[in-house]
Amino acid sequence: MHTFNEQKVAQLNELLKNSPKIVIVAHKSPDGDSIGSSIGLYHYLKKKGFTVEICHPDPSPSFLHWIYGVEEIVNYEDSSSQVQEIISNSDVVFCLDFNDFSRVGNGIKPLLQESTAKKIMIDHHLNPSDEFDLQFSEIESCSTAQLIYDLIDALGDIDLLDENIGEPLYCGIMTDSGSFRFPSTTPHTHEVIAGLMKAGVKNHKVHENVFDTNTLDRLRLRGYAISEKLEILDEYQTAIISLSKADLKKFNYVKGDTEGLVNVALSISGIKKSIFLKEGDGIIKISFRSKGSDNPVNVMANEYFQGGGHANASGGMWSGSLEEAIQKVKKVIPEFCK
Amino acid sequence: MHTFNEQKVAQLNELLKNSPKIVIVAHKSPDGDSIGSSIGLYHYLKKKGFTVEICHPDPSPSFLHWIYGVEEIVNYEDSSSQVQEIISNSDVVFCLDFNDFSRVGNGIKPLLQESTAKKIMIDHHLNPSDEFDLQFSEIESCSTAQLIYDLIDALGDIDLLDENIGEPLYCGIMTDSGSFRFPSTTPHTHEVIAGLMKAGVKNHKVHENVFDTNTLDRLRLRGYAISEKLEILDEYQTAIISLSKADLKKFNYVKGDTEGLVNVALSISGIKKSIFLKEGDGIIKISFRSKGSDNPVNVMANEYFQGGGHANASGGMWSGSLEEAIQKVKKVIPEFCK
Repeated sequence: MHTFNEQKVAQLNELLKNSPKIVIVAHKSPDGDSIGSSIGLYHYLKKKGFTVEICHPDPSPSFLHWIYGVEEIVNYEDSSSQVQEIISNSDVVFCLDFNDFSRVGNGIKPLLQESTAKKIMIDHHLNPSDEFDLQFSEIESCSTAQLIYDLIDALGDIDLLDENIGEPLYCGIMTDSGSFRFPSTTPHTHEVIAGLMKAGVKNHKVHENVFDTNTLDRLRLRGYAISEKLEILDEYQTAIISLSKADLKKFNYVKGDTEGLVNVALSISGIKKSIFLKEGDGIIKISFRSKGSDNPVNVMANEYFQGGGHANASGGMWSGSLEEAIQKVKKVIPEFCK
Repeated sequence: MHTFNEQKVAQLNELLKNSPKIVIVAHKSPDGDSIGSSIGLYHYLKKKGFTVEICHPDPSPSFLHWIYGVEEIVNYEDSSSQVQEIISNSDVVFCLDFNDFSRVGNGIKPLLQESTAKKIMIDHHLNPSDEFDLQFSEIESCSTAQLIYDLIDALGDIDLLDENIGEPLYCGIMTDSGSFRFPSTTPHTHEVIAGLMKAGVKNHKVHENVFDTNTLDRLRLRGYAISEKLEILDEYQTAIISLSKADLKKFNYVKGDTEGLVNVALSISGIKKSIFLKEGDGIIKISFRSKGSDNPVNVMANEYFQGGGHANASGGMWSGSLEEAIQKVKKVIPEFCK
């Protein structure tokens, strides 16, 4: 089912033969895919008999703490010297879910640059750099976790799959494909999921663990944002949600509580752009989302809000008051709604 | 991939050979699966050259009006004599997504009973009755739409699949499996979805059409319900949401606006039961949801609220004020939390 170049797979096989000590690294601000693919690969390589460690730039978010093996991740923020030692002693570094050394942050980046270990990249992001010794880059793949499955398949080890390996991979695919919703989801994605479930993965357990972790404060904050702070600009098919520091404090905001809120406003029938503004310390963080290939938001984020990103999902910021930021958004939006 | 009894499939093939006029009937209060499987089967049979009509008890909900072919459905509520004529002139009636004639309502039920046409049931609900001439009952299937796919496969027609046939089937499977979340989702479900996507179904189009149809009022009502009307009974791991007639009026409530709200409260970490009370005309409608096989809510619904249903999803009612209903729930909940 996989499409990997056979020669590269043979190279990988050769590399692994002489590499007792393996490290898995992934990008900063870990998400379901970077953690899922890291832990899935970890359990697979352990089962093959390798010495494996996972080093991430920062701690795992709490909504992924249920994954079996997550406690094995050593993170640079908490244990910099340990990460330094592990990477400097490694024979091979798997670089998962990123395409450029800069994505692992200022702590781990020099460690990768100085290390004599072979760096194997497995990733699905656009424009991979050439800093790696071996590249498995498939930009059509919905997730890196799907590529880990493909690689296990390519190495002839699909029979080794079990719940420990498969569950984090399912989590990575599910979160990065928007629960199989995004256009990046292909027939092959569903074939991979079928394979993971045959190996023992219980889908409802993953969905429940990832999605049913709301706190009362989190739900109430989101409810309040939608019922009280959502504004529609009919003429521009745009929804705006804004939350002040006082709003956040009222609901005991913790990081992650407003994750995905910008997409809720995009679910309103007829709405093509959704913009979420959140007041931080001396800065307003702004998320932009849009629908349609002819409706980019990254240009607006870049031109007026010191940001950028994907055409349909961008970020930016504003140095000033929340009210000013909202006014600026309203002022420039007509330029981008033709 | 299908598991149908070959003899039954041969019987069906035989029946269809001599049946120029086919009618498709599904249950009252149509949902994604009853409509998706009806329209998927309709397009397939039309492509095979049959004369086909779809007769449903009541109109399709608006969130499914985008499906190609939905306007072909003749519903009894609006066109009773037309439905009567169609069914009395038919050779074969496909009975989809129900297992007992009583499920089609008092209008269509006698028409099925009096008809001399062969009734073919395709369904996944428990305890099928023996009123049908031919039964394809698979209670393990996540949806009837999945069974339609299996039947097309069993009839050797998988090559006939196209976007028109596949899209409503995808919709039926997706809605009845909770977007592939429920335990009823199997590896085979994902294999079927892969097959549908290979036939041209665009997953993101279906997800967008089904889920991104919020109105501003609907979103605001739900936000208000969560931020202002959600109460947690910590001791009983229970969440209660209540909406009065005044609340509903404030947000211009229309049918469907509070659909699924009870499940949002169930997504709070640690919550095992969720109860939603909605004031209607002289009656309080109550929805009960729970998690876990050892945590049924249908007993409570049955004993105190004139209702019942599934162990984890039940309904009931209260004749009295909203405040009385809430007090009654709080009074009896300790009995069911041991």
